Order: sequence, then structure tokens, then C-alpha cells
Amino acid sequence: MLFTVSRTRRLLQCVSRLLQCRYIQKGHTQTNGGLKKAISAFTSLCGEDGVSTGETVREQHGRDESVHRCRPPDVVVFPRCVEEVSALAKICYRHNLPIIPFGTGTGLEGGVGALKGGVCFSLRKMDQVLDVHQEDFDVTVEPGVTRKALNSYLRDTGLWFPVDPGADASLCGMAATSASGTNAVHYGTMRENVLNLEVVLADGSVVHTAGKGRRPRKSAAGYNLTNLFVGSEGTLGIITKATLRLYGIPEAVVSAVCSFPSVQAAVDSTVHVLQAGVPIARIEFLDDVMVDACNKFNSLSYPVTPTLFLEFHGTEDSLDEQVRTTEEITSANGGADFQWARDEGTRARLWKARHDAWYAALALRPGCKAYATDVCVPLSRLPHIIVETKEDLIQNGLTGPIAGHVGDGNFHCIMVLDPDDSDEVQRVHQFTERLARRALALEGTCTGEHGVGLGKRALLREEMGPGAMGVMQSLKESLDPKNLMNPGKVL
Amino acid sequence: MLFTVSRTRRLLQCVSRLLQCRYIQKGHTQTNGGLKKAISAFTSLCGEDGVSTGETVREQHGRDESVHRCRPPDVVVFPRCVEEVSALAKICYRHNLPIIPFGTGTGLEGGVGALKGGVCFSLRKMDQVLDVHQEDFDVTVEPGVTRKALNSYLRDTGLWFPVDPGADASLCGMAATSASGTNAVHYGTMRENVLNLEVVLADGSVVHTAGKGRRPRKSAAGYNLTNLFVGSEGTLGIITKATLRLYGIPEAVVSAVCSFPSVQAAVDSTVHVLQAGVPIARIEFLDDVMVDACNKFNSLSYPVTPTLFLEFHGTEDSLDEQVRTTEEITSANGGADFQWARDEGTRARLWKARHDAWYAALALRPGCKAYATDVCVPLSRLPHIIVETKEDLIQNGLTGPIAGHVGDGNFHCIMVLDPDDSDEVQRVHQFTERLARRALALEGTCTGEHGVGLGKRALLREEMGPGAMGVMQSLKESLDPKNLMNPGKVL
Repeated sequence: MLFTVSRTRRLLQCVSRLLQCRYIQKGHTQTNGGLKKAISAFTSLCGEDGVSTGETVREQHGRDESVHRCRPPDVVVFPRCVEEVSALAKICYRHNLPIIPFGTGTGLEGGVGALKGGVCFSLRKMDQVLDVHQEDFDVTVEPGVTRKALNSYLRDTGLWFPVDPGADASLCGMAATSASGTNAVHYGTMRENVLNLEVVLADGSVVHTAGKGRRPRKSAAGYNLTNLFVGSEGTLGIITKATLRLYGIPEAVVSAVCSFPSVQAAVDSTVHVLQAGVPIARIEFLDDVMVDACNKFNSLSYPVTPTLFLEFHGTEDSLDEQVRTTEEITSANGGADFQWARDEGTRARLWKARHDAWYAALALRPGCKAYATDVCVPLSRLPHIIVETKEDLIQNGLTGPIAGHVGDGNFHCIMVLDPDDSDEVQRVHQFTERLARRALALEGTCTGEHGVGLGKRALLREEMGPGAMGVMQSLKESLDPKNLMNPGKVL
Repeated sequence: MLFTVSRTRRLLQCVSRLLQCRYIQKGHTQTNGGLKKAISAFTSLCGEDGVSTGETVREQHGRDESVHRCRPPDVVVFPRCVEEVSALAKICYRHNLPIIPFGTGTGLEGGVGALKGGVCFSLRKMDQVLDVHQEDFDVTVEPGVTRKALNSYLRDTGLWFPVDPGADASLCGMAATSASGTNAVHYGTMRENVLNLEVVLADGSVVHTAGKGRRPRKSAAGYNLTNLFVGSEGTLGIITKATLRLYGIPEAVVSAVCSFPSVQAAVDSTVHVLQAGVPIARIEFLDDVMVDACNKFNSLSYPVTPTLFLEFHGTEDSLDEQVRTTEEITSANGGADFQWARDEGTRARLWKARHDAWYAALALRPGCKAYATDVCVPLSRLPHIIVETKEDLIQNGLTGPIAGHVGDGNFHCIMVLDPDDSDEVQRVHQFTERLARRALALEGTCTGEHGVGLGKRALLREEMGPGAMGVMQSLKESLDPKNLMNPGKVL
């Protein structure tokens, strides 16, 4: 473990505070109304600058990037180490105060809203990369480390962490929401890339899901607790450390773009590319509306048809073959204008449309807000659901260009809406429910990567059925019997 | 879903039996001594040929391939459909009878022993491949389908299921034990390759871990129940159906063998191959003792030094580059005699030593039995632990050639011992405990792929610590409050 001076100082501060506050551990359980006492105990523990009840700070921590309305917590705490997180959680437990973990606030389903008030645990001060094991392809990070910060830290090691949901989210937040993104088709999602988690449970106890400090690349030792907490959205515990798999930075990267006469042709190409064993790193779909928006936003001139944006990672030689095979496949499926590029500048230009899709969609209606739907279906069902969804959008006069991680069967309609137009808000809501139910009818899921949060609790029940929901509820009750951990989310 | 004639007939039989036996559902709860009544109810449900109390049948179902002694169940039942499994489980629940799921009996940690008597559920009659979705790369299987049977069934589809633990185990059994094997380094373990499970819980209720019939390639919908049951070794429920990921059969395969001057050189080569991004499909290590045994068993003449057996999957062109890069890396690390082959016959000859390792080890001491240890450590720790383990074997006069899935840091000592020599049995036991503790001290696990079963419960506690063990115990109690599901295993 690397002990930097700042980390050592921070640890000493923590220990000193904990010694000062040991009386807290002996306090008796209060059933209600203990907020004031709790805040006083928080301040003894974390100092004045570690606790905030200011309106602005609370509001900043009561919303994410979704359209769900802000629900500020009663107080925000800024712990500096797991010992503080644990001590703070114990205080909350004693006073029956809800706990809402907060990473970067880049979630998309209202997961950080304080529905029942309570205490927001902002983890941004715990921002150290703790251990890089180059030969073992793993790293351990604190919860304030974002994916870009990690990749910047790793730059000289020849390694990187590839899971990329777009936003510069915290890695532990990404674990909490089971995030994935553009290159999950090759590198997997957070589910496949977390080796171990340190978690503080509702009662303040600290648990290591694969045993303390362990990091074998595989294990058959007992229940897979790591993947129980991955995707639990803060409802089972606070993730305070994550050990992640790393990968060698590819020797070379090629980007490509190809236009198709139909959604079916684009999806067929994707299936054939996967069947051919091309280890494609990203394969992204934009529909004609999205391409049109991107053209206008960036002064580009892509044909306004369904389009695939592709990326290949590998050695120079292997990329030639990957690109050749893919071009043959897309061509056989009616693809046209296959363009590819190897140098960084041209690659960036080629993919600019995909990278700016969100802003291009927003620019369709200046002053409006955007909300991204997030269904995922088996690959063969994609043409059907996309065609039906586009008809639905037109029929209901809604703006919702489509971008998708088509290699996983996962796509988003970027719904652009006027939040003050209650009729439109209502129509968007009804549309997203119809879309989710369409995915469920096609053996898919209502969320491929954004999670359930606030917005999809009813859909989750439809998706899982009473049996699986009963199991989830049992697990929740066994680990959080007081329902203090991010209450009102997921279940 | 494909309904074959045999499946339809079987379903009708099930429904008819269930109607005959509906009285069972209304019976009152019995607390003890209900075995006789239960057997009578089983027979009404499954017919005479669906229930056995014969000594031979019970003994066949009371052991796996480990050295743990046979613990026969009181009765073995052979359900034909999930409805029967559920009805049988309800009878067991009412009479408080333990339930032990049984696939092929190829486990290695005593997972099927009926420690407290009870009812063995042999699932071999549920042997249908239910759905193959070629375009979606998935399949659903009943619990009696083995991996070889599935791959034989899939032969004409261009797809295969790659997880290969050696034995021709049932796929649901492999899910239950979180199996992996030689090509996990490329294709992942069962944890990464199960999309959905149908599970019968202790009370007989039927749950679909990702919702009934769902099969998106990724999901962020609620808790990851699938991976809670994967690796739960029958202690949380009976897996009655599994939906699995499939892969395109590689266009070409190359096998290779290379000898090294030291364990360190072999492991360094492995790390460098992975760092270089070579998508190696298998990378297996044999120590000098194992190579010597294989030479003798198969009249081969490999240099008696640490050796890597490699396999590459890909297109013709990409394999050339993979092999070239790997040969350069092994050569730079002191590897010699790099041999490779593309045609099937030569490949089989080249890998014969690896494939026959188990029997070659046994042939070292004719008449003896074998027990495989199963630790897994971070890659960089492998040379240290292997060297120390070899010294330990020599010091204690034990026979334990080493074979390992070195790309995952997972290796086995194939302990060859005389089961009637109690002193040797004791020394082997002490050795395996020392080996596991050595792995724990090096941030690894006591089991990479065989599971905990009976043999590693104490080690699991050391590995996980009280916090994680407490969580596992809570989960078990919440899903199986009567402790009927495979009691005495894992926890």
C-alpha cells in the first residue's frame, strides 16, 4: 500500500477525532428526533468543515443529472476515511437517520434524492488511488476517485480501466449502479470488473466482500457478496473502497463509421461481427434523427440514416484484419460509406458525432432538458423495438433521438422536453413506460446500465415478478432491518 | 421455446401427477419423523421409478469425486420438471427434511454428501436443451444437461459454451459451484456466463433470478440475484434452469508448448502475454514433477522443467500474430523448445500431456487416490507460492505434481495418496491447510474454482473474516430459515 504524506496525515486526523468522540459509541439508542444531537456528534467527529447544513450544499447533494426533482438531505457529511464513515453510520443507526451515499451526482435515475430526509455521505474527500499492482492487473481506489482521475493516474503504467459510462463518475458510484457504457461489449460492465469491495453496512460495521485485502482474479469462496453490492445503489451499504481489474492499454486503436439502409441492416452487421469473433471494443448505433442532430450540431455531413460507430483495440496487424472483416460484413449487409481512421485526430473527428450526441440532442430544442431512457433487449429484438419506438415517438410528437450500445442490445432515447410543459412531461413519462414494457415483452430489461433508483421501481416489479422481488426484499431486510440505507430506492 | 414431443409428454405427465397429488399441498406442517410419509408423497408425485431408497442408489448419490467419505441421503428422488421439483421441495419443507441437489456428482469438495440425511434431488431426468437463440448468443438448459451434451447439441449452430472444468459436469451444477477451468482466462468463469437462473427455494417457491424468461446481455435491474445463486453450492436453492452466454466457435485454433528454466520465467511470460493484449484462450502451467509424470505416462519426452501449454483462438491471420508475439515473449524470458501446431491431430498430441495430467499423476503411485488442492493468488505471487509449496511437498515426503490455470493465478497440487494410510492422509490434510493459508497470506483465496463444500468451511471463515461471514450467514438465514438446503456446506 502506498502511504503518501497527505494520506498519513489524514489517517492521523481521523484517529484523533475518533479518540475524541469515543463517547459517541457508548450513547444509547434514540428512536426519533435525534437529528440535532446527531449533527453535533458529526461535527465532533469530522470538524466544522466536514459537516454542512447549508441550503446550497444540501441542494447540490439532493439531485443527480436526472429530471427527478431535488430532494435535499437534512445534512451533508464529508468523511475522510472508512473509520469516519463507520463512526458516522453508527450515529445514524442510533438515531434512525437515513443514509444516502453520494459520489459525483452523475446518476440518471434519482438515486441520491433524500426521499425521507437524512444524512448525505459525500465521499469526495476520500480520493486516493491506494494500490496499483501492475503485474496483477488490479488497483484499489477510494470512493472519491473518478474513472478519468484513475486513468490519468495510471497513464505511465501501460494499464487502464476501460468501463466508460460517459460521465466522469466515481468508480465506487459506478460499482453501486452497475454502470457500463460504450465498451462493455468487449471489457464487460462493473459486474465483471470489481474484484473486492469495502462496504460500511447500515449499523456501521465494515465488511470486505471478498475478504480484507484479497484480490485473486477468480474465486469460488462462498457467496458472491461483491456482486450483491455491485448494483445495489446504496441500499445495502456504503462502498468505501473498490478493487478493480485493469487492462493493458491497446497498442493501437482504429475508429470507423458506417451508414446503413435500415435498423435491421445495422443490427445484422453487429450480430455477424460478433459471430465472426471480431473482438470489437465499441459498436455504437445512432438512428437517423440522432445523426441529423449531430450533423447540425457539429456541421457534419453523415448520411441521415441508421449509422454504426465502431472502435477496434489491438495490435497494428490485428487491427488491419478486424477492420477488413468488419468492412466486408457491413458491406454484405448494405452498409455504405465505411470510413476508418487510425491517427488520434482523425479518429476524434470521426467519432465526434457520437461523443456529442447528448448535446446535439439538446440543441434540437434550446432551453429544454434531456432525459435518457435505458432499455436492453436480446440483440435479435433490437430492430423490432427500435422501429416500434420510432413510430411511437412520431405518433406522440416527442423528440427522442436514439443512441445505443448495440453490441449489448442496450439503447437510449434521449428525450428532449420542456420541463415546464406538464402535458409534455406526462407524455414523455407515458412513452418511457411504454418503451420499458416493450422491452419487457421482448425478454429484455427496463434498465441496462442506469439502474432503478427512484424512477423504475414499479417497472422493476413487473420485470422481476413477485418471486425475485420477494428475494430482493428479504436480502434488504436481512442487511438493513431498519431500512436506513438509501430508503425508497430500488425496492 | 422448443416444445419437443418428449417434453410435451413429460409436462403432461407432471401435470397429471400434480393433480393427483394436490392433497399434499393442503397437508399440515409436521415437525419431525415425517420421512416415511414424505416418501409416500414423493412416490405419489414421481411414481415408483422416480423415488429410490435402495442402498446402491443412495450411496451413488452420497459422494462426489473427492476423498470425502460417502454420506448417503435417506432417499433419492428423480423429478422430471420444475413443477415436480417445487412440489417435492414443499413436502420436504413441511417435514423438515434436508434437500441436497445432485447433478453429475463430479464435484471435488464433498458438496453432495448428506451430512444430516435427507432427500437427494437427482436432476438427471431434466436433460433438455430448451432454447437456442443463435443471433442472441444464448441458450437455456435444464439441470441434467452436461457441458459436453450442450456443445454436441450446438455443433451445427457455429456456437459453443466454452467454460470447461475438465469433467463433463452438468451446467447447472457448474453454476452452483462457480466452476471455471482451463479457458476462464479468456471466456470468464460461470460468474460471467450465466444470464438467468430458475431456482426452487427451500419452501418450494420458484424464482427467476433475472425475471422469468429474460435474457438481456446486461442489466442494472435490482440486486444481482443470478450471481448470488452462482457459487451458492445448493445451500440457497435448487437450480432448475440456466440461461447461458454462448460464443462463436473460433475459426482456427493453435496449440503450443514451451519449457522454462524456472517457475518465475513461466509466470513472467504469462504476465507479459496478458500485458501485450494477446487474447490467449488457455495458458496452463505444469511443474517439473507433473511434466515428468506426463512423460512417463504417455511416453513423451518434454524437458523436465516448468512448462506452459498454450491455446490461441481466432482467425487464421490473427493467430499467426498471437503465436509470433507469444514466442517472442517466452523466448525473452528464457523459454525454449517453443512448439506449436494448427491441425487437430498434432494439437491433440501436443496437449496430451496436459489433458492426461490427472491420470499421469495417479500413475505415479498405482492403487492410490488423488485429491486436488485449489488455491488462487494474484499472478505476481505465483512464483513465490509455487516454489514454497514444492519445498513443503519434498520436506513432507508427499506426491503432489502441480498443474495450474496460470493466467488466473489458480493452481492445483494433485495429491496422490494412499487413503488407507492414516498418517499420510493426515499429512496431506495438514499440507493442504498450509497451502491454503499460504494463499491467504498472499492476498489470494483457498478456492479458485472447486468451491467450499465440506472441506473448506474453516478456511472460508479465515479468508472472509467475521464481517463477510456474518453477511453470508444473514443471507442464508433469510432465504433458508429452516437450514434445509444442503445443510452443513459452505457455512
